[in-house]
Amino acid sequence: MERTLIGELGSCVGETVSVEGSIDVRRDQGKMVFFDFRDRSGTVQGVCLPGSEALEIAKETNKEYVVRVEGTVNKRPEKNVVDRQNGDIELEVKGIEILAKAEPLPFDTDAEINLDTMLDYRPLTVRRERERLIFKTQAEIIKGFREYLDDQGFTEFQAPKLVGDDAEGGAGVFKVEYFKDRSAYLATSPQLYKQMMVGPFERVYTAGAQFRAEKHATTRHLNELSMLDFEMGFIKDHTDVMRMLEGALKHITKRLGEQLPGKFELPLVPESFPVVKLREAQEILGVSTDEPDLEPEHERALSEWAKREKGSDFIFVTHYPVSKRPFYTMEDENDPGMTKSFDLLFRGVEIVSGSQRVHDYEMLVQKIADKGLDPEKFSFYLMAFKYGMPPHGGIGMGLERLTQKFLGLENVKEATLFPRDMNRIDVLLSSSIPDESNDA
Amino acid sequence: MERTLIGELGSCVGETVSVEGSIDVRRDQGKMVFFDFRDRSGTVQGVCLPGSEALEIAKETNKEYVVRVEGTVNKRPEKNVVDRQNGDIELEVKGIEILAKAEPLPFDTDAEINLDTMLDYRPLTVRRERERLIFKTQAEIIKGFREYLDDQGFTEFQAPKLVGDDAEGGAGVFKVEYFKDRSAYLATSPQLYKQMMVGPFERVYTAGAQFRAEKHATTRHLNELSMLDFEMGFIKDHTDVMRMLEGALKHITKRLGEQLPGKFELPLVPESFPVVKLREAQEILGVSTDEPDLEPEHERALSEWAKREKGSDFIFVTHYPVSKRPFYTMEDENDPGMTKSFDLLFRGVEIVSGSQRVHDYEMLVQKIADKGLDPEKFSFYLMAFKYGMPPHGGIGMGLERLTQKFLGLENVKEATLFPRDMNRIDVLLSSSIPDESNDA
Repeated sequence: MERTLIGELGSCVGETVSVEGSIDVRRDQGKMVFFDFRDRSGTVQGVCLPGSEALEIAKETNKEYVVRVEGTVNKRPEKNVVDRQNGDIELEVKGIEILAKAEPLPFDTDAEINLDTMLDYRPLTVRRERERLIFKTQAEIIKGFREYLDDQGFTEFQAPKLVGDDAEGGAGVFKVEYFKDRSAYLATSPQLYKQMMVGPFERVYTAGAQFRAEKHATTRHLNELSMLDFEMGFIKDHTDVMRMLEGALKHITKRLGEQLPGKFELPLVPESFPVVKLREAQEILGVSTDEPDLEPEHERALSEWAKREKGSDFIFVTHYPVSKRPFYTMEDENDPGMTKSFDLLFRGVEIVSGSQRVHDYEMLVQKIADKGLDPEKFSFYLMAFKYGMPPHGGIGMGLERLTQKFLGLENVKEATLFPRDMNRIDVLLSSSIPDESNDA
Repeated sequence: MERTLIGELGSCVGETVSVEGSIDVRRDQGKMVFFDFRDRSGTVQGVCLPGSEALEIAKETNKEYVVRVEGTVNKRPEKNVVDRQNGDIELEVKGIEILAKAEPLPFDTDAEINLDTMLDYRPLTVRRERERLIFKTQAEIIKGFREYLDDQGFTEFQAPKLVGDDAEGGAGVFKVEYFKDRSAYLATSPQLYKQMMVGPFERVYTAGAQFRAEKHATTRHLNELSMLDFEMGFIKDHTDVMRMLEGALKHITKRLGEQLPGKFELPLVPESFPVVKLREAQEILGVSTDEPDLEPEHERALSEWAKREKGSDFIFVTHYPVSKRPFYTMEDENDPGMTKSFDLLFRGVEIVSGSQRVHDYEMLVQKIADKGLDPEKFSFYLMAFKYGMPPHGGIGMGLERLTQKFLGLENVKEATLFPRDMNRIDVLLSSSIPDESNDA
């Protein structure tokens, strides 16, 4: 019999169907066995009635057994209807075929699990409803990001992860043993590549892994993360970039509300995100306006202010000083010493940095030198500017941190399938495997 | 005045517009200057007439200057209409504002450019129409891949690129200096991770960079490549995977035909892709059936046969011997010694490998040991199988090689923005850049 997806059972009342999935829950009541079956489309309750031929097999099974079940879809009596997917139906199990057995799980799947256990048993913990929701949400966020930018005329490109030099001397960057006598480094950002792509495509985005060798041990840092980056040409100033970002985040929020309705609290999104200059933020918070940046606790306080005063879970902070921003950041001619840059705070944490970039070749060479760097090492990048580059700007945003904040998770590692840090990197061989497509 | 995109000028005849873009072509005829302007939406011819106020500025400009142009959109006389985008209109230039200057280009953009020059000047060569088409095509391929799989109930996930061990001893894998006293390695495939994701999501895909430390110098190998991978549960056997892949490639082909019509020769796609067993392929080619694989010249000959005899640019080859396939490949119970595996050849080259995988825990442990590997090192991966895994299978496909074959390019590096090989890795600092979103 053809497989029916669990999500489609609601329209099969009275029919005999074949369902394939995992046993999510199993309750043996002696004369009867109750199940929750799970497949990619949802869950449904199943019951193996007294005298059923399948009862003996049902008793052999356990949580996470993979099964093919034949049964009849019955409407539940009104009083037993529960408020969840397929809550008004039940699968009366007539036959069970075991496709794969499972050992008893090493932890209680319904209980609270601490972060270490969560990650030690990731291949199993990710099967829980809570964790599936996290990574479904992550998939929808990246989809929403691409969808919005595609619609705005952006072109996706693949940024390289191996880079050939480390002009500053190694802090914060992982070194790779490249071919004989050569080293390479893992990219910390696609920044310079995406700027070069503004020449041919004007509006570009790229999404992928980036690497940070920093010895952080916080709830919001990762050593390997997924970055969402875009860059756009022919802007007036950084506010055009902010508007594009705001549009993307509103679209993502809308998409999450549609695709995963009622699963978590969507952010407060006002008509337009509030914007304050760094100095204004410091005045609002009553802290020194001499500091070049906000401390984490200031970011939290400012987010609370934005929520309370502006009804927004997002707030832009603009005009960070030249000293605190990378060489490619445009200075504000109307506010010397300050840049046309911004951070976006979301529920207490910075999730995006962006700015208008310097597009004039001579000015860019000067800015590189001003930061004590050697323009010679940037010649490949500078080539794009020597031969004409429009005014442009863009942003970078960490996917895991964004997922964390949308869902209100405590630690960014909960929003990372296989987080890498100083103490954790799973011992998983991929190198021994004859490759899947680049071989011969 | 608001900017008008060049692609929208066709509906602005008689109007005065403001256009922003780069100078793609410039011909100074003394009394007049002709241009082709380019923005992200297309190109248009512009003319600066004798006596025009803009003529003086027009004479100062050159190729790749970035400009804002005010002008009137005129219909061209019937006899001057040319067969290209905006071929029936012309922008009569009234004013030019220079947004960025450009030095004279170091090569003739219309000429044939050899591969080394192409890559040495990548920030510039990618601005050429031919190269923009290549990377537009690549963006459409990856979009088509995701679109098809999303529609089939797949969930996207992010596979890690840093892996913690190298159980086989290092050939073909790049080593990373991780934190003090630890090494890590760059992933050569998301294989083991995507299999683990079948448990929670049943159908998954992932797209991203993978790394191969092989010292190849061929027209089809890269040391860093973008892999498109999917994995699906509850299959009957490898033919379910082949059907899904075939569906994805047909969708991509259709999408390319719609999005980039007439830009290149679309592949021949029959009702269903031809399928031959390895042994049958060897018989067709008249080569020894004792060989465990096809040589590159055999793959070319078999592709020619498929095109000639079956009207197809694609052909599946199935049933490679156990000895030639990774441990996780399912053996065919009806053809002992042979696996439920396949390669897909496209226009003479293998672009995909796939198979049904072993899903039984005990069998998988045995297969790992049979290959001389230590099952202990795979315990994280094996966890997924110990606790119930459905029958499943999947594929891996290199995005750059796929792009190469769709476009009929000679070398896969032409389809790679910044290819990395033994001799080439651009000296581009990304490490010195204060990061864009993970900082503070």
